[in-house]
Amino acid sequence: MDNPSFEFGMIGLGVMGRNLLLNMADHGFATIGFDKDAAKCTLLESSASPNTKVKGAATLKEMVQQLKKPRKLMMLVPAGPIVDSVINDLLPLLETGDIIIDGGNSFYKDTLRRITFLQEKKLHFIGMGVSGGEEGARKGPSIMPGGDLEAWQNLKPILEAISAKVPAADGKKEEPCVAYMGKAAAGHYVKMVHNGIEYAIMQLISEVYSILKNVVGLNNDELHTVFKKWNEGEMQSFLIEITKDILLQKDDLTNNSLVDMILDKAGSKGTGKWTSQEAMDLPIPLPTIDMAVAMRDMSVYKEDRTTAAALYKPKIKVYTGDKEKLIQQLHDALYCATILSYAQGLAMLHKASATLGMDIPLQDVVRIWRGGCIIRSSLLETFTSAFKKDKNLSNMLLNKKVAAIIKKKQSALRRVVQISANAKVPVAGLMSALSYFDSFTTEKMPTNLIQAQRDYFGAHTYQRTDKEGSFHTDWNR
Amino acid sequence: MDNPSFEFGMIGLGVMGRNLLLNMADHGFATIGFDKDAAKCTLLESSASPNTKVKGAATLKEMVQQLKKPRKLMMLVPAGPIVDSVINDLLPLLETGDIIIDGGNSFYKDTLRRITFLQEKKLHFIGMGVSGGEEGARKGPSIMPGGDLEAWQNLKPILEAISAKVPAADGKKEEPCVAYMGKAAAGHYVKMVHNGIEYAIMQLISEVYSILKNVVGLNNDELHTVFKKWNEGEMQSFLIEITKDILLQKDDLTNNSLVDMILDKAGSKGTGKWTSQEAMDLPIPLPTIDMAVAMRDMSVYKEDRTTAAALYKPKIKVYTGDKEKLIQQLHDALYCATILSYAQGLAMLHKASATLGMDIPLQDVVRIWRGGCIIRSSLLETFTSAFKKDKNLSNMLLNKKVAAIIKKKQSALRRVVQISANAKVPVAGLMSALSYFDSFTTEKMPTNLIQAQRDYFGAHTYQRTDKEGSFHTDWNR
Repeated sequence: MDNPSFEFGMIGLGVMGRNLLLNMADHGFATIGFDKDAAKCTLLESSASPNTKVKGAATLKEMVQQLKKPRKLMMLVPAGPIVDSVINDLLPLLETGDIIIDGGNSFYKDTLRRITFLQEKKLHFIGMGVSGGEEGARKGPSIMPGGDLEAWQNLKPILEAISAKVPAADGKKEEPCVAYMGKAAAGHYVKMVHNGIEYAIMQLISEVYSILKNVVGLNNDELHTVFKKWNEGEMQSFLIEITKDILLQKDDLTNNSLVDMILDKAGSKGTGKWTSQEAMDLPIPLPTIDMAVAMRDMSVYKEDRTTAAALYKPKIKVYTGDKEKLIQQLHDALYCATILSYAQGLAMLHKASATLGMDIPLQDVVRIWRGGCIIRSSLLETFTSAFKKDKNLSNMLLNKKVAAIIKKKQSALRRVVQISANAKVPVAGLMSALSYFDSFTTEKMPTNLIQAQRDYFGAHTYQRTDKEGSFHTDWNR
Repeated sequence: MDNPSFEFGMIGLGVMGRNLLLNMADHGFATIGFDKDAAKCTLLESSASPNTKVKGAATLKEMVQQLKKPRKLMMLVPAGPIVDSVINDLLPLLETGDIIIDGGNSFYKDTLRRITFLQEKKLHFIGMGVSGGEEGARKGPSIMPGGDLEAWQNLKPILEAISAKVPAADGKKEEPCVAYMGKAAAGHYVKMVHNGIEYAIMQLISEVYSILKNVVGLNNDELHTVFKKWNEGEMQSFLIEITKDILLQKDDLTNNSLVDMILDKAGSKGTGKWTSQEAMDLPIPLPTIDMAVAMRDMSVYKEDRTTAAALYKPKIKVYTGDKEKLIQQLHDALYCATILSYAQGLAMLHKASATLGMDIPLQDVVRIWRGGCIIRSSLLETFTSAFKKDKNLSNMLLNKKVAAIIKKKQSALRRVVQISANAKVPVAGLMSALSYFDSFTTEKMPTNLIQAQRDYFGAHTYQRTDKEGSFHTDWNR
């Protein structure tokens, strides 16, 4: 056995694990990987760029033995019990001070449990979100580590090297899309909310696509042109960019547009759902993410929907007004609703940071989301400036620059909601975004009536507008 | 010590526990109660009707010793660890075959755990939902027991006696609002979803109240008249009825309308939130309950909302069209959205019944919701008929009679959504109900685009419309 000469080890050589290792190797780090599937170890080695040091290990033990101390080991395995199983396999092989990183989409409460468990074993543990998909992992993802501060300092050079780069605020140099996201399970928590926002934006784009297709009547080439144009303006973002690409893609089997051959049942891996469920526990309202989750769930009930469509025979009303004007309104509505989705997610992080004691630096969150990740967009620059002005901003809608945008675009969102309601095109996401905005900017909500009802039937008490305390009325006297 | 002569024991003599015991006593059952607060035992005895047998016990042991075997004991204590603590206190006092009932709003997963625990001790356990508030408990609630079938048979005479009564289907006699809700934790599960539907309907009523008040411009007396009229027609329900009462109630302190003196921060005890969270796990879409939870959560952020209101200065647009016509549209929109809320909850029970192995008899669920409970309404007769026709109906919207109502009323819901979007009045619930309807009746949702996006950036694969299997495309080639 050689002296330990590798700087980073990866357990799980699926496309994400392999690509991250290759990315590290490209930046001069000697890397080694292990996977129970030996073919993946072979593929790792054969994929390495010339003059890089990348090795596939035959066993976990062989890999661990070849790592420099303190050992740096990342798991990229499916979230859930497999993570615990890998940790258990590692325990007899590691020494005090070694660092284990969980780079998968683990539920943050599992991460909290593992932090406690590994602290007792005198091992460092980092729960870390990685966003950017296959391509991001290979060329530069956005990386969200949290928890053990000492381990973070140790990992920083490697993670900064492999992460996406964006222009620095001063415009002179670039900066890496990785930063310490806060205490405990903050890394996985921030990644969870990132994915929740991703669900919301994808839902919104799908709704606007549906209106453009069914109400405006555009074909896929025309749709491509619209999204291409949108991606060249203020709405530039990764998700708009890939939508434009998707609309051009031909199907190898039929030569139709591929998007039209894809079944409308959406899958999910759980992070969007967790975001909504956790928001309800905090509590903080997150209606657009809730609706994105609900609509993916609705999509699965294809059989019932087909029966219902036959029973109700909905007929979409094609728009007969100025189509160019409607397309511009759709742009503004989507832009506005996208901002409202980010605002919901960021407000959740603000609340969770305090409630769960994570000290999440929101200004760093939006800064490292500017590059590499799935929800990167030109809007992140605006949000970065906003948090630079007030790092404790409780809601992005309270920033004046953002307010100026929303004030200008909100009428388009209202208009699109009205047209969709009339046209019978479901737009749960857009409607929820408008509801979020209209309720957030309402000083007096009608929840006073709900409190009266609760006190009426359940004696749950209410507060008053004119004095402190809890009150109960015998309503039915 | 006398021979055991009491037929039913209650632990926890808050207003619900006391009223249920008094209700039992009125029906000829000898009842005994215990509460750590001795004053509540005294109050129990002093509240008893003449010629009834109601006793407050000084200790848990004293109560248990005076109960006939198999002992029937109900807990009505706050959900959570207190339930476990009371069970532990009871264990040394009970014998094989005794029956413990948890009548509180316990989370169904806690109930599952307790069922297993008490089975090992050879005790019967019933998780049971009770709805109707204080008054229902005293005069006749809707009762939702589930789990142990033998215990249910034993409890049936008492529960049937105290429950609300509604006319039987044949119109000749009345029938009790209690039935066996299914296996395991079905009782608490059904009650949880009942409360979720309750959240949704309350949210919808509050939105319509807000439009009537702020857009139509009605004062509280006029609002009362509207809800009174609505309660006399097809929308007759407990929640509309109490809304009408609430709008007339004067405040003792200021002589204003009391509803105007109530702060717009809504509280909650968790059942609505659980319903949404569990729906996401099943998964099944429940957008209107999700929005009801989100808007209660939004209501709590009063400080941010006040700041936002000052920044955005929203100005509600008062309606200048035919107000009587709008009021009728609001009626129809609320009726339609209420049906859509029940449909969501019932679809959840249908799915959960199979997924969680509870065998919930949906026809009995809606039958016993006809009286006593908070969501009782004339609509439940329609739903009872629907399940009589098809006890496995997966979604109420697929029933032809319901479809006929929705077809007739849906245009009003569309109109109200449009007016609210334009008027800047948040109607998250109404909008979510419309989105639910429009997506449920859509054969082809735009989720094909979401699946394309997921496959593009994460290689999550997709299904095709023309053949079986999972497919992946290298989109970015």
